[in-house]
This record gives sequence, C-alpha cells and structure tokens, in this order.
Amino acid sequence: MSSEFFERHQPVLERALAAAADRGYWSPFAESPSPRNYGETANEDGRAAFEALRGKPFPLELSGADGTVGGEQSPYGFGLDITYPRVPPAVLVQSAARAFESWRRAGPRTWVGVSLEILARLNRRSFEIAHAVQHTTGQGFMMAFQAGGPHAQDRGLEAVTYAWQEMSRIPDVALWEKPQGKNDPIKMEKRFTVVPRGTALVIGCSTFPTWNGYPGLFASLATGNVVIVKPHPGAILPLAITVQVAREVLAETGFDPNVVQLAAHAAGDDTAQQLAQDPSVKIIDFTGSSANGNWLEQNARQAQVYTEKAGVNQIIIDSAEDLKGVVRNLAFSLALYSGQMCTAPQNIYVPRDGIKTAEGHVSFDDVAAALGTAVSKLCADPAKAVELTGAIQNEGIVQRIEQARALGLPVVVDSQSLTHPQFENARVHTPLVLRTDASNPDISKEWFGPIAFVVATDSTAHSIELARNSVIQHGALSFGAYTTNDEVAAQIQDAAEMSGVALSLNLTGGVFVNQTAAFSDFHGTGANPAANAALSDSAFVSNRFRVVQTRRHV
Amino acid sequence: MSSEFFERHQPVLERALAAAADRGYWSPFAESPSPRNYGETANEDGRAAFEALRGKPFPLELSGADGTVGGEQSPYGFGLDITYPRVPPAVLVQSAARAFESWRRAGPRTWVGVSLEILARLNRRSFEIAHAVQHTTGQGFMMAFQAGGPHAQDRGLEAVTYAWQEMSRIPDVALWEKPQGKNDPIKMEKRFTVVPRGTALVIGCSTFPTWNGYPGLFASLATGNVVIVKPHPGAILPLAITVQVAREVLAETGFDPNVVQLAAHAAGDDTAQQLAQDPSVKIIDFTGSSANGNWLEQNARQAQVYTEKAGVNQIIIDSAEDLKGVVRNLAFSLALYSGQMCTAPQNIYVPRDGIKTAEGHVSFDDVAAALGTAVSKLCADPAKAVELTGAIQNEGIVQRIEQARALGLPVVVDSQSLTHPQFENARVHTPLVLRTDASNPDISKEWFGPIAFVVATDSTAHSIELARNSVIQHGALSFGAYTTNDEVAAQIQDAAEMSGVALSLNLTGGVFVNQTAAFSDFHGTGANPAANAALSDSAFVSNRFRVVQTRRHV
Repeated sequence: MSSEFFERHQPVLERALAAAADRGYWSPFAESPSPRNYGETANEDGRAAFEALRGKPFPLELSGADGTVGGEQSPYGFGLDITYPRVPPAVLVQSAARAFESWRRAGPRTWVGVSLEILARLNRRSFEIAHAVQHTTGQGFMMAFQAGGPHAQDRGLEAVTYAWQEMSRIPDVALWEKPQGKNDPIKMEKRFTVVPRGTALVIGCSTFPTWNGYPGLFASLATGNVVIVKPHPGAILPLAITVQVAREVLAETGFDPNVVQLAAHAAGDDTAQQLAQDPSVKIIDFTGSSANGNWLEQNARQAQVYTEKAGVNQIIIDSAEDLKGVVRNLAFSLALYSGQMCTAPQNIYVPRDGIKTAEGHVSFDDVAAALGTAVSKLCADPAKAVELTGAIQNEGIVQRIEQARALGLPVVVDSQSLTHPQFENARVHTPLVLRTDASNPDISKEWFGPIAFVVATDSTAHSIELARNSVIQHGALSFGAYTTNDEVAAQIQDAAEMSGVALSLNLTGGVFVNQTAAFSDFHGTGANPAANAALSDSAFVSNRFRVVQTRRHV
Repeated sequence: MSSEFFERHQPVLERALAAAADRGYWSPFAESPSPRNYGETANEDGRAAFEALRGKPFPLELSGADGTVGGEQSPYGFGLDITYPRVPPAVLVQSAARAFESWRRAGPRTWVGVSLEILARLNRRSFEIAHAVQHTTGQGFMMAFQAGGPHAQDRGLEAVTYAWQEMSRIPDVALWEKPQGKNDPIKMEKRFTVVPRGTALVIGCSTFPTWNGYPGLFASLATGNVVIVKPHPGAILPLAITVQVAREVLAETGFDPNVVQLAAHAAGDDTAQQLAQDPSVKIIDFTGSSANGNWLEQNARQAQVYTEKAGVNQIIIDSAEDLKGVVRNLAFSLALYSGQMCTAPQNIYVPRDGIKTAEGHVSFDDVAAALGTAVSKLCADPAKAVELTGAIQNEGIVQRIEQARALGLPVVVDSQSLTHPQFENARVHTPLVLRTDASNPDISKEWFGPIAFVVATDSTAHSIELARNSVIQHGALSFGAYTTNDEVAAQIQDAAEMSGVALSLNLTGGVFVNQTAAFSDFHGTGANPAANAALSDSAFVSNRFRVVQTRRHV
C-alpha cells in the first residue's frame, strides 16, 4: 500500500525534483479555486464541511486524551465553538516513541509515499481548509484558499522533494573493492540505512498555520520522523484537519496513526515549553515571535531547531520609471492581509530631496502622498477592500495601530475601520502609513500589522546603509527596491547579499514583495536574525536524518 | 588563475562526485609512500624539509603578530624548537573580516578551484607533513604518512566535493514564467548568489591534526568562508605547513592570504574561547574532548558548531568462524597508534559462558586469553611493534595506563614499555587489557589510550543491550561485532541503527574497526553523543553558505 503511494506519486516527485533544480515556475496544486480545477461542487462542499465542524468536538481520536480545549474565535466576529482532544505532553511523546518503532523501519520510499498521499488528500480538502484558515487567521477567502491550500501544499511537497533528493543519494548498498597490488583486492559490502532522528515538533503560528507549518511537518515526516503538531491556540482547526488527513493515510497503510499527533492546548499554558524541552524531541520547527524563537534556540538544546521569527522588512525607493506602478504595487503589499505577513514591507526609505522618475523629479512629500493616495484608492470600496485586507487576527494588532498613531508622527494615510458586507463584527482595518526620518528609533522594531513608515533619508546611499544595517541587526524576510540605475541596483544587491536577505527589484506588476513561489523563491535565507533556515533547501532537510552503515567482508 | 585551477582539477572533482555517490573504493591521493608514487627523492626531501624547520622560527608571515609561541615536544623524545607567530584573537578576526570582502565575491568555482589546488600541493608535501605529524602526534611513520597525508587529503577533497555538489545545484539564474490564462505570462529573472557565512574557526586536536582538521577547513573554504586554523599547542607544525600552503596559493591568485590564518597559541590560554565566542565567527569545527566540545555547543551560539568528541567504543563477540582471526584483528586495533584514536575499541563484550566457534565452544577465559596472546605476539618484537604503536602523545595518557592498572582488575595482558630502536627517549607503551564484568561503572567512561576491557556479560542479548545503551548515553565512533548467526547480526545491526553508530561485522582481515575510508565510510554519524556531524555528508556542508536571490521582471 505504502509503496503503491510512492509509485502513484513518483511522476510528480520527479517533476518536483526538476523544478527545484531549475527554479522556474511550477506548481502541482492548482491555485485557482475554479470548478475546472476542483469540481463543480467543491466550493459548496468545502463550506458545508466547515460549517458541519462548528459547534462540535472535532472528529479526531487521540490516545491518552484527558479533556478538551478550544475557544477559537473567527476574526470575522464569531466563535467556532469547536473542541479538540487535549493530550498531556508527556503522553504525546510516549505515544510518538511507540509509533516511531515501526515507522523508522519503513524506509525512505514509504515515508515519502505516505507524505505525498497526505498532500494529495489535503489538496482535495482545500476548500474546507480555506474556510478553516479564513476563520482562524482572518485572511480573505481567496488568500486563505491559495496560501492556506495549494501554496501550502506546494511548500509541503517542496520539503518532501528535498528530503527525497538527500535520502536517495545514499545508496542502499556499495561494494568496496580495494586493490592490494599482486594480491586479491579487499572486498567489502557496505549497507547504508537512513536513520531518522526520532520525534519532531511543529509549532504553528496564528496567521499562516498551514503555509508555515507544512514545510517542517513534511520535511520531518518524509525523513522518517514522527511528528507532534502543536497549533497556535488561536488557529487550531487548519492543522487539526491536516493531522486528521495524515492519520487517516497512516492508518490505511497499517502504521500507528500516532506517527502524527495534534497537541491542541490552551493559550498561555506551558505545552510548547514542555514539548520543546522533552529529551526525546529531536527536531523543532517554529514560526512565531522572535522572543519565542530565540528561547527555543537557546533552550531546546537537544533538538535541531528551525525558526522563522520576526524581522523589519525594508523598501528602498531610489528612482522609478513608473511611480504610479511603484506605489500601486506597494499599496497592495501593505494592504494584503492587513500587513499580517512576516514578509510585509514596513520601512520605505526615500531620499528627503526626492527621486528621479520618467516624468521628472518628484519630491519626498509627493512620493509619500502618491503612496497614500494609492492606499486610499485600493481601500475605497469596502466590499473589494475586505477581500484584500481580510480581518485582523487578534486584538493585539488593533492595539498596535493605536500605539503607532500615538507616536505622533505625520500621517501619510490613516487606518480606517471598514464594515465587512458579510460579517458585521469583523475586525477590518486598512493600512496606517506614517512619515518619519532615519533617526527615529521606532523604525528599528517590528510593527506587525497594517503599519508602515515612509522614512526620509539623506540619499539612496544612506537608504542602503540603513536597510543593510537593519537587516543585520533586526533581521528581515523581504527587501524591495526601486531604481532605474544599474549601478545603484548593483549596490543594493550587494547590500542584500552582505546582510543576507532576498531582494525584489522594481516590482510594479502582479508580483509582490511579500509573496514567494515554492520551487523557485527561497522563503527566508537563514542568514539574518529573522530566520535560521530557508524554505526549502538541503540544509533544511539533510540533518533530520542520519546514515548508519554496516560493513562486512564479502 | 583561480579559474584555471578549477579547470585543472575538474576531472578529479567529477570522479570524486561519482565516488561519493556510489561509495565504492576510490582515493585520488596515493596512500603508499613508494617512490613510484611520490618520486625517488621524496622520502629524503621530506625528511630534510622537516629537519630544516627544526630549531627556527617557522616561515610564516602573519599580519599583526605580537610575539611567538612554540614548545612542541616530539613524543619520540626531543623538542622541535620551532616558534610560530602569535596573533591576538581580536586581530585574527579583524584580518579575516578584511580578507572576506574579496573572497566572498569570488564565487563557487574559485573557492573550489583554490581549495583543490591547495590539496594538490599538500599532497606533494606529504613526506614533510608525515614527519611533522609523527613528531607531534607520536604516530608511527607509516600511519603519519597515510593518515596525516593522503588520507587526510582524501577527507579534505571529500568535503570540497560535497560543498561543490551543494553549491552547484543552485542555478546562477532562472527564468520564472507564470501563465496568466489568456493574458501574457508574468516573467521574472531570478539570480541566485551563494553567500558564505563569514569567518570559520577550525580547532585542531593533538592526535590527528590534519585528518580531523581538513574536513572542516576545506568545507568552510570551498563554500567561500575565511578560515582561522587554531592548532592544538602540542601539534602546531602539521597545520602550520597546511596554512603556509594555503596562503601561498591564495597569494598567487591575488587574494588576501588572510583568507586562511594560523592561530598558534600557548597551552592553557583562552585563545580558543575568545575566538569561539567572537560574534564574527560563524562556523566552528572542533575535534577534541567532550568537555570542550560540549562547551562550544552550549556557548558558541552565534556559530554553526560541528564537533567530534569522545565516545566509548564497543565490540561484541557472539561467535566466530575463526577466533584467531578475530583476536588478531582486535589486537591490531588495540595496538594501532596505542589506541590513541577516537575509533579505537575499548569495551569487548563476551558472554561469561563463552562462545561458539568453528572449533567448538570456547570459554570466556579462553577468549580473553586468546586476545591477550594475540596482543603479546603482535608486540613481541619491539622494532616491529613501535611502527604499529607509535609513541604516546602526552604524559596524561601514560598516567591513564597507571590509573587503569590501579583499578585492580584481573589483567588479560599488561602494558609494556618498549625501547624504540631509533629514538631512545620515545614514550612507547603496548596495550593494557583488563577483565571485568558488565556491572563495573568504569567501563562507561572513555579510557583514551592503549586501554581496553574484556567484559563478561550474561549473554549476547545482554552484550547488545549494553552496547546500545552505552552508545546512546556516552557516544561511540565505532562498533564492531563478531557473529556467525545471521539473526544475531540483524539484532546487532538494529541496535547500531537505534543508537546511531556505524557497525563493522566480522572483521578478521586487513580492515580494522578503527579505520574508515573517505568517499565510502562516513566517519561519525552525528546521531550519538560522540559527534554532532558526520564526515562528510550534505549536512556537513549545506549550512556553511546561504543563498540570496534577486528577482526582477523581464
């Protein structure tokens, strides 16, 4: 059964290996929710499936559960009223260790085959997952579908692909034949076994539970580890569905479903710390705050720790062919999911003396004003705007808008509260853009949410220096720049390489600085404080397993 | 020039990539010191070159030196009287950072080409290095030549090979073309730059300065990092020659020679700690004690830390076709370099009721006696024995033999002091083998040096349990077993895989449990406490660099 899965999905795997090598566009999971891709009834079926989950215990049986947890609130203004089994951390790790015994022996083809089958089945539940993502994270439906469904599945498949690439280069057996001059050669048979590390922990976040959760989950699972998925208490459902699908595939193939477990827990308890410091937990994938990520790096010393934390993302405007295109693109990046993305731009550096454009010199004030206008236009029609902004995930982010206003800086465009046409209690807030200059220490911290600063600098050289130093000190997951000057572009690229952040140059069309594409763009670099790993590369997978050899004479 | 190097060595690199994939026998550097391989005068030239270095300042100019250090003593009983420039740690890291500026931009072909040229030139100095290794580590000449010369170069090349494999899979440029239905596709050009981490530190050991030093040195250098080589104060010369060769190649190619620096220092000072905790040091490769390795893992948090530490190596004797072959092979492994190898066997488990052999049942006492006899025979002729045992590297190891004797355990074969026919003051000591049983806590610590225990167990099942648990708790770099029973062999292999240690089965010929071959055997697994990395695999190289991309519309 499990080897059938491998064979069934092998063509996709081979195409994925090629895509990861050439890094051109490729996506196996259709990003358009069109009925042509997912069937005529998929949308309604998905919505119905989501609605059927509300107000009930989630259908997941976990060994050793001692009660339930729940309490998720949709940012669109209602409670989900779903409960999940709660299993004490000590029981989770014991069940994981038992499940490991047979899983570890199954070998790379099985681990990869099962992982690919799970992804294929998740794809078929993309609409249900989209609703689950929308009503936990606050994303608009289209983003919840794409980022929470097919794009997350792409990133999962990407991790499996790298895992297979690394494992498949280890031969099962080698004949070692050493010449001995006139004597017979020494001949040995050497067998190589891929040995997983053991129990892996995935710590999910509240904004992209699947997109940020799948790479670690599938990298660990495909390399033979057993996985405990600990969702954020505010966004359990998307990962609960994921775990349900994984356990269904595992059970069908005769494995202990506890190869993948859910660690739903109440906000503020110490489940994450207990699991992260358990001696049997050997791998941790984390997405969340810098404080928690740094704590894991410092304290979970028994584990390989992969973190994606916070950063301060940087934009440099030096000059532009098409200023309207620039500000339109940036306004979209600021409004998209209300800036609740680790890749959303925050600091936009513009020389105080203005910039060159195709239409001539444009002053700093006019650049700022153009951006403000672009944001206002984008958000002018609430019905359209809410699809872009979605809702604010939690009250802390709404408060942060207030804190930013209280800085007393000149306002480029103010944040508005919008009324969602469908969900009257939804928390919808458009971007707040403020003006400041480079000496303001407030721009060196992350203002997660719909908050950005247009920062006056002495010159583009100064902008580059600020951006580079900020990335080195505070980290960044994205960096965009606009320039018509090749030499300036080269200087900016050098700054990106020195500080270790991916660069997007002159985005004015349908690609945005906060979006990356699996198989082509690395997400994060692992080279600055915002993340210690990249999604996905060899380093992300190659230490999740080890190789043990047995040699003997033949 | 540097691209010439890449082209010149490309055929070897390609052969090395194939060897690392099929893991059969391959070595580009001839292990036999025969004149056919190295030329008629190579031996004498190497000796003369070594003699010419004695009693003088070593010919190495380092920026910012403020005095000299030295004091190496040959374990064969004389002082080398060589001094080396001493550069304060803070100056080393500053010079490294300056050298990094141009080196980081040179790119993978140059980093790899320069690395391969350095290795080729080191090979030509193998005899000189052999004498330097012999008279710092105490190894016999043949081992000093092979392990210190060609085998170390093999391991260096192996690291370069993996580095190239990982870097070369990153395309320089990709065209990303995303279909947009009836509209034109979105087209982007994406450029990918391999970005090294910065300054790397290699911390050498006193017993295998080149063999254990080259993998980290070349893995870091070939991925574009600048390297500070900190030798053990007792074994500076082999790494000083190495650094000299590296700087010569760097200078010829127009790079700042400070891309590779030597951090010679006095025993007991805090050079290692200062360098290891410098914020600019991003990679550390360490070979040495568990205490120091664990300290680095805990404290050098700004760096990727690769450690090879101590372990307690395990042998299980269950049954044998040819007991004489077994004990002859084991005796050789115990005597080789007086057990001063991280892979030398220590605990030899034998069921107290004896074992089955082709000649019938053999009691525990007789197995132990056979091993004792084999050791005695091997060491009977001092002139031959000293070539195998070499000399004891430092007085601490001689004292450890005394401490082992003081345990008061029954002696299987006692350690003898031998007089070296050439070097009358050489510290030569043959193996001490003691008898004990499984309950003795002394067998759970490492007795580095020519000290081993024949341990009576309840049964082979008990032996397996002891070996597995010891590897999990105390780590191991080697594990050997003798059995004629396939089922027992499978159980032992499972124990090896569970505990994460490489297994050698039924070695009775010319391969020894303490030896590994580059490109075929992984050295260490990274899966037990004795080492957190393996030589060499993807995980050993793939996090020494990161990738920074720049994307733009086309």
